Order: sequence, then C-alpha cells, then structure tokens
Amino acid sequence: MMGSFSVKPVKVGICGLGTVGGGTFNVLKRNAEEIARRAGRGIEVAQIAARRPNPKSDTGSTPITADIFEVANNPEIDIVIELIGGYTQAYELVMKAIENGKHVVTANKALIAVHGNEIFAKAREKGVIVAFEAAVAGGIPVIKAIREGLAGNRINWLAGIINGTGNFILTEMREKGRAFDDVLKEAQALGYAEADPTFDVEGIDAAHKLTILASIAFGIPLQFDKAYTEGITRLTTADVNYAEALGYRIKHLGVARRTDAGIELRVHPTLIPADRLIANVNGVMNAVMVNGDAAGSTLFYGAGAGMDPTASSVVADLVDVVRVLTTDPENRVPHLAFQPDSLSDHPILPIEACESAYYLRIQAKDHPGVLAQVATILSERGINIESIMQMEVEEHDGLVPMILVTHRVLESRIIEAIAALEALDDVVGSVVRIRVEQLA
Amino acid sequence: MMGSFSVKPVKVGICGLGTVGGGTFNVLKRNAEEIARRAGRGIEVAQIAARRPNPKSDTGSTPITADIFEVANNPEIDIVIELIGGYTQAYELVMKAIENGKHVVTANKALIAVHGNEIFAKAREKGVIVAFEAAVAGGIPVIKAIREGLAGNRINWLAGIINGTGNFILTEMREKGRAFDDVLKEAQALGYAEADPTFDVEGIDAAHKLTILASIAFGIPLQFDKAYTEGITRLTTADVNYAEALGYRIKHLGVARRTDAGIELRVHPTLIPADRLIANVNGVMNAVMVNGDAAGSTLFYGAGAGMDPTASSVVADLVDVVRVLTTDPENRVPHLAFQPDSLSDHPILPIEACESAYYLRIQAKDHPGVLAQVATILSERGINIESIMQMEVEEHDGLVPMILVTHRVLESRIIEAIAALEALDDVVGSVVRIRVEQLA
Repeated sequence: MMGSFSVKPVKVGICGLGTVGGGTFNVLKRNAEEIARRAGRGIEVAQIAARRPNPKSDTGSTPITADIFEVANNPEIDIVIELIGGYTQAYELVMKAIENGKHVVTANKALIAVHGNEIFAKAREKGVIVAFEAAVAGGIPVIKAIREGLAGNRINWLAGIINGTGNFILTEMREKGRAFDDVLKEAQALGYAEADPTFDVEGIDAAHKLTILASIAFGIPLQFDKAYTEGITRLTTADVNYAEALGYRIKHLGVARRTDAGIELRVHPTLIPADRLIANVNGVMNAVMVNGDAAGSTLFYGAGAGMDPTASSVVADLVDVVRVLTTDPENRVPHLAFQPDSLSDHPILPIEACESAYYLRIQAKDHPGVLAQVATILSERGINIESIMQMEVEEHDGLVPMILVTHRVLESRIIEAIAALEALDDVVGSVVRIRVEQLA
Repeated sequence: MMGSFSVKPVKVGICGLGTVGGGTFNVLKRNAEEIARRAGRGIEVAQIAARRPNPKSDTGSTPITADIFEVANNPEIDIVIELIGGYTQAYELVMKAIENGKHVVTANKALIAVHGNEIFAKAREKGVIVAFEAAVAGGIPVIKAIREGLAGNRINWLAGIINGTGNFILTEMREKGRAFDDVLKEAQALGYAEADPTFDVEGIDAAHKLTILASIAFGIPLQFDKAYTEGITRLTTADVNYAEALGYRIKHLGVARRTDAGIELRVHPTLIPADRLIANVNGVMNAVMVNGDAAGSTLFYGAGAGMDPTASSVVADLVDVVRVLTTDPENRVPHLAFQPDSLSDHPILPIEACESAYYLRIQAKDHPGVLAQVATILSERGINIESIMQMEVEEHDGLVPMILVTHRVLESRIIEAIAALEALDDVVGSVVRIRVEQLA
C-alpha cells in the first residue's frame, strides 16, 4: 500500500516548543506516514530550538538547541518553522531564515499583521515562501479557502469570530447570565486566556487576524495600524439579554467590507440575528464567513486555537511548501493571494466613515415626550429606526431603559446623535452603542 | 494599481453553456481583473462548445461550435472545462482532452465518482491535471480544504449535507409540517429538483459526492459501486416530529468513517442532535463536517449548487491549474490528495458491518408487556437503549407508537432485532429505522 518514497525527506527546523511547537512535533511524528503519502516525501524534524523541553512532546533523539538562530543558519534545513511568538525575536529569526534562502512557516499573526509587507518583500527577493495558515483561526484552513478556494470571486465582505477566548466569555455570559469579569477569571483558570488578557478581550488579537484576512480577500497591503478595535470589556449581561429579546446574539466580530469609498476594517462587539449559523458558534470555537460575488456566503468553522488544531495548519503549510519546492517562484501562490505588483491602494476607512446598523440603549427618566425627543434627534440626522423596545417596568433607579435598533447609517451620524441624546435632560448617563450586522 | 501582466493569457475552452457553463463564462468575464491579479495571467475563453446560446451569458465574439471535440482538439487551448454533465460524452471528451495533453476542469461528480480512477491514471500518464472542486458542494472549497488544508491530519470521519434539493425538502417538512411529495413538487417548480428527481431524492447524487470526499480524505481509490445509498422518499412528517421531540433533526447525510475493519461509505436520512451546527444548515445550503485527529471537527458551509456558486469553484480550479502549468507534474497536488502509488486498499464495508446508533419507531398494540418484549429482543442482541418515548395518546388505529433511540451497534444486529420485533404479535407493520449520528 505504501509507495517507496525514494526521494529524500525534507528537513525542517522547529523554533519554539511550546503549545504549538510541541503539537507540530507530535503531529509530524504521529502522522508521518499519512503526511508522506500526501506530500510524496517525508518531512523530518532535523533540529528544534527550545529553552526547555515540552513534557507533552517526546522529541527522542532530535537535536535540540537553545539558540533559534542555529536553526535559521543550519545548512541542512530547508524550512524553518517559527513558533516562538512575539514581534522582536520572531522578526529577526524569520528575516534571517529568509536571508539564508529558507522557506518559513509561521503561526504568528502579530508578526504577519505588523511586519508582513516587509517580510513578504524579502521573501520574494529571495524566492522563498512564508506560509501562515496557522496564524488565523487555528485549525480552520481559511487562509487557503480565501486565497485559493474563492479565487474566482470579487469578495464583498468577511466577518469572523476569530478569538476563542472572547467567544468563550460571550457564550458564558449569554448562556449562564454571568458577568464579564467572572467569566474572564474562569477562562484564565482554564488556560483559555492569558494572565494579561488585553490582546484577547480588547480585540487586538482579532485585529491582527482580520488584517491578514482582509489583505488576502481584497488584495491590499497589510495595514494593522488602520484597523479599528473595540473590546468586549464593557459589555453587560443586560445588553446581552436585551439583544436576545430582540432576536440577536452578541459576538465579538472582525468585519472587513469593501465599499466604493474604501475598505472597512473593524473589530467590535456585534449583534447578529440569532438564526444565522455564525451566531450559533459557541465556546472557544472560531468561524469565518466570507461573501463573494460568485460563491455567495460561505462559512468556515472549527477550533481556533490549541496544540493540535494549530499544528494541523502548520503541517498543511509544510506540505504545501514541500510540493512547490521545485516550482519557479513566480508561479507560486502569492503570499497575499494577489500578485505583489497588483495590490490595490484602496484606502482603509476611518471608523467614522464606516456604515453599520446600531443597537442603542438609552436610560431615560419616565417622562412623557422622551420618545418623541429621541425620535426627532435620530430623524434629523437621517437615522431610521428598525425596531424599538421600551421596558414597561422601571429599574430600581426610576429609569426606563429604551432599546433601539437603527437601519444602516454612517458611524459619524450615530456619534452626533449620541452626543445630542446624552445632552437631553431626560437621558441619564451614557448611551450604550453596539453595532448590528445582518450578515445576509 | 494593476500590474502589467505581460505574460500571455491562458486560453481555455468551455464545453457546455448551461447553468454552470454560462455562470463560468460570466464569472471569468466579470471578474477578469481580480482573477488576473491573483493568477498572474489573464484567463481567456478561446472557444465554447454549446448546442444553443444561454440567454444569461453574453458571449459576444467568442467562437462557438456545436462540437465539443473541436474544443478538445483545438491546439490553441490549454485547459478544457467540461460542463456538459453525464457519463458518456463527458467521459469521451475528458479522455480526448487528456490524450491531447490538455488540463481539464470539471464539475461532473458522476463522471469523477464512476470513472475517476481511470481518468486520473490517464492524466498522470500525460502529465496533466484534472481538477474537480466544483463536483462537490458547489461553491464551498471543500475538496481543497480536505486535500490540502487538512493535509496534516489522519482524517477519522466526515459527514455532509451535499444535496441541496434533499435538504430543501427536509427543511420544509420540518419547518412547515409538509409531506414529502408536496414539497418535492414545489422543488421541481422552483427548479431545485429535476423532472426526474431520482438522483437527488434517492441519494445517488450525494453518493457520487461522498465517494469523492472519502477518497481524498482516506487515500483510497474511488469506489462508487460500494457506497450504500438510501433515499428520503419514505420519510414521514411523523418521524420528523418525533425526532424533534427527542432533540434531533433529520438530515440526508453522506457519512464516511474510517474504522479498523474498513471504511464506512453511506448515504441515508440521519438524526443529528439539534444543537450541532450542521443540524442548522437549512434550505438548499450544503455543509461538510470533517473530523481529523489534529484539527478536530471543522465545518465548511455554503451554496451547494447554482450558476454562480458552481462557477466560483470552476474558476478557482482554473487559477490553480494556471499556477502550476510550469510545475513538474510529479510535484503537483495529487488528484486524490494522496500519491497515486500510495493509495490504501482498506476495504469499503458493507452496510451490515457499519456501526451507528438507531432511531426505531414501533407501532404496537396497547397491551401490557409489549415494552418488556421489545426490551428483551434488543438486550439479547447487545443493543442498549439510550432513550425511549412512548406516546400516551393512541393513534386512530388503536396503535401506540413507541420510539427508541439505541446506542451505537453493528447494523447487522439491528437488522436481526427488527426482524424479531416485526414478528411479535403485538407489533403491527414495519418498524421504522433511521440512523442516528452524534457527530461529536
């Protein structure tokens, strides 16, 4: 049943033996036969760079060094797998590997989102590949799906649940009525969230991934610094419940949309109709919805993180690289899906120029005429109301929450309207504003 | 913003200008710029073979012939796109194109499932590619996902809703309580179902697609003749409703599972827990769930048919082929994901040797002791009951429906048990048996 695989195995070096590095080593070892049957060659780990062993990976006699640059400079190695994370050392490692004519596979979203343009230019100069499927949505092959599987489409928009920690927190808040802080503590105890959860709950991690997805979808350079990012830390169970009553779920969504004026690139809590498939993606799972002019809406779902799922994508990239080792570099799949000399300069829009529908929660005194004042402020700014829900029962402070969902409108209009609403005598405190996407 | 694309465009010929052929022509024309920016070369339709024009495609000055073999023999053409469907002419066309050293892109699941082994052997001999993303699940790039995106995995099982007509019928039966025949007539009127709906409702179309998915998932030759196929024509709204009451949805599922004894390859109505994402795929939409040892469960969702979605996959294949035109054929992605000399001879299991859980509906006379007799028959055959639901109200014929869900057991055991149950004096008529998959 097995072919002979007389061709010599490809030698790879793994830098970083943490969760993903250990997983990658394990998958390469466990599935060596299946992988060789697919790739037509074996893949051999010739060297590992790690500061300490990983108790979950039995690396046996594989040479281990503490110095990542030994791997980048190892003349035996064809492909360097960067799994150390972070921007600084990882950047130096990847650039050194490229400089040495080695292909690179990385799971590092921050590195690609922030330094990708420079890294790809260098890789192009040296005729090597930098593959990064594992950088977005863990085990879901969504980079490949957009870059190759939907290559016939003009992509209109994409929207993704691309941070598992955030989705776990929102799922618990909705299903169990728990408060944000309470769930965050549990997520940290479970190992889903880091000790410093800023990257996850403030949306920075999601913005890194969204930046990458938008580039390959629209053929634009990576522009992480222009992504709008809003976290989930201020979400209350009250809003989660009101959203539910209106037929919506709140998800922390990365949204990228092409408009005539430019590209919207934004991460924020979002109300989604509860009957959408993506609204039912729960716990730590990830999903990315992509809308193209030919395929319509597709959705890609799976584990967004973890030892084995992320390793799955690292190894898929390895197989891809092995298959094109002898291909003329000009004929390979471009790093950002589009040929580098035909990237578009369509601008990323500031958030004020983005368009969305909005959920507004206004705390009003229970006086006659408040609704009329609110309606006037919105209508004067061309904001149409899709639905309104006024609570019949006063809250303990004598205030009546008024919930509105608007039609789509420019964000700048909503900002103006909220300022006017908050200036009303009968409106108390801040107006809560959460964006709404129909994803139809 | 645009590169110069000094390289000459690749010339392709489209055979068949029906729904998919017309859609492919349109997408290539509409998205010519985006496609060239991705592929690095333009793709030009040099000739079309069609018996009649398609009012939805303005083919302008593109040369049209009535003879498909003119396209296969056209020395100008590099890639032949087979979109005529069926086994006979399509087979001859594809073999002729390969013989002439042309690459082939096809959306023809029947052709690939039945003649694929022979076609791929010929293609290998001639060093050309036969690409078939559009043959399974329309616009969802699921072939690519399994073949490349999950290449690091040992795939355990996959399960798919891969026939839109069938899913539309089941969705209507569930949501509106309509009868099978009634919905089928509407599906035919809407153009979802053919005048002869056999391929759709008897599961043959799904079995073609499942055969292809199983091959690329497990690295086995195509073996359509060994697929077990059961249609949805005998499903009643009663069972749809009982399933609902038990927390399940009934879907027409293609299931392929690797076991030590062999590969299960089966298409049949299936109860799925209602909270699974795939249980919520409704209407004509398709979805394929894939479980790998590293990635865990992933799901790929989208439009499974239609002019533009299918064209999306045809064009993605074209871009893939264009990118590897100059690649050494030995280094290309193998047709069936695994190297042809390392396909496995792991056998396809007969349905009796497959394992599943079962939903059983027994029409019993309302006598004491029936339940005890039923339980004895099951327990004597090692069949454990997971849940049981006995209707309190008698039906008009004086019979009481008894609904059982079993644990997983060999199909041969259930066949024996059903024969014994039907032989009981207090059981009237046939026992309804529908398989249950947890897809966990």
